[in-house]
Amino acid sequence: MYEIPHNQLEVTPDVFSEKCPARFLLSKVSGKWSMLIVDVLNDKNLRNGELIRIIEGISQKMLTQTLRELAEMRLIKRHDMQTIPPHVEYELTKLGKSLREKICALDRWIEDNMFELIENNKSIQLKRI
Amino acid sequence: MYEIPHNQLEVTPDVFSEKCPARFLLSKVSGKWSMLIVDVLNDKNLRNGELIRIIEGISQKMLTQTLRELAEMRLIKRHDMQTIPPHVEYELTKLGKSLREKICALDRWIEDNMFELIENNKSIQLKRI
Repeated sequence: MYEIPHNQLEVTPDVFSEKCPARFLLSKVSGKWSMLIVDVLNDKNLRNGELIRIIEGISQKMLTQTLRELAEMRLIKRHDMQTIPPHVEYELTKLGKSLREKICALDRWIEDNMFELIENNKSIQLKRI
Repeated sequence: MYEIPHNQLEVTPDVFSEKCPARFLLSKVSGKWSMLIVDVLNDKNLRNGELIRIIEGISQKMLTQTLRELAEMRLIKRHDMQTIPPHVEYELTKLGKSLREKICALDRWIEDNMFELIENNKSIQLKRI
């Protein structure tokens, strides 16, 4: 339960504050699965099966849960085409697209600096092939 | 165990690939605790007690573990002043400072959009006070 003064202008959002909703949102947005889903939902809508295939290693359970959380934050929209068999697509909202810029910058930074980050890293067992 | 061709140029880092070290790095860098530690280590070095105080809600165990992981990725440096009582400080490396730009952009985005993200969000129980 987060306490918010009735006049929201009295709140200064702060991720360092344990009781601030911004901290909760950080934990939701910063998870690797959220980051990968928002990253991949570029300009085109994707279906559940496409997301599962592209985001290697995600389970159906984690995908369903993360899609629900992203929809609750209004970062994605769920389009149910009301057909049989069911056809559901997911699309980034305008807010989601704005977040995507920040997430992609981070994801591409990790890729660009991967070799430096793994060099002599004891947590990563590399097998040279 | 990650398999890397001896000629690293043959690898295209890809966070969507389950077996790519970039995916492992994403899971380490993107956790909320990593993001908060890298965010707070601005231009000045901080000690364990200062980090615990500023990053509300982090446990000593999570702080110690996350600092070790960040050091293994060479994002932070640990300075042990070799004094009694011990005095240890943590500092962002040049690589860490480069990452910090991306992380801060994400953290500030969450703060800037907090009210929109929590509006009618069923996962967040707000109490208006």
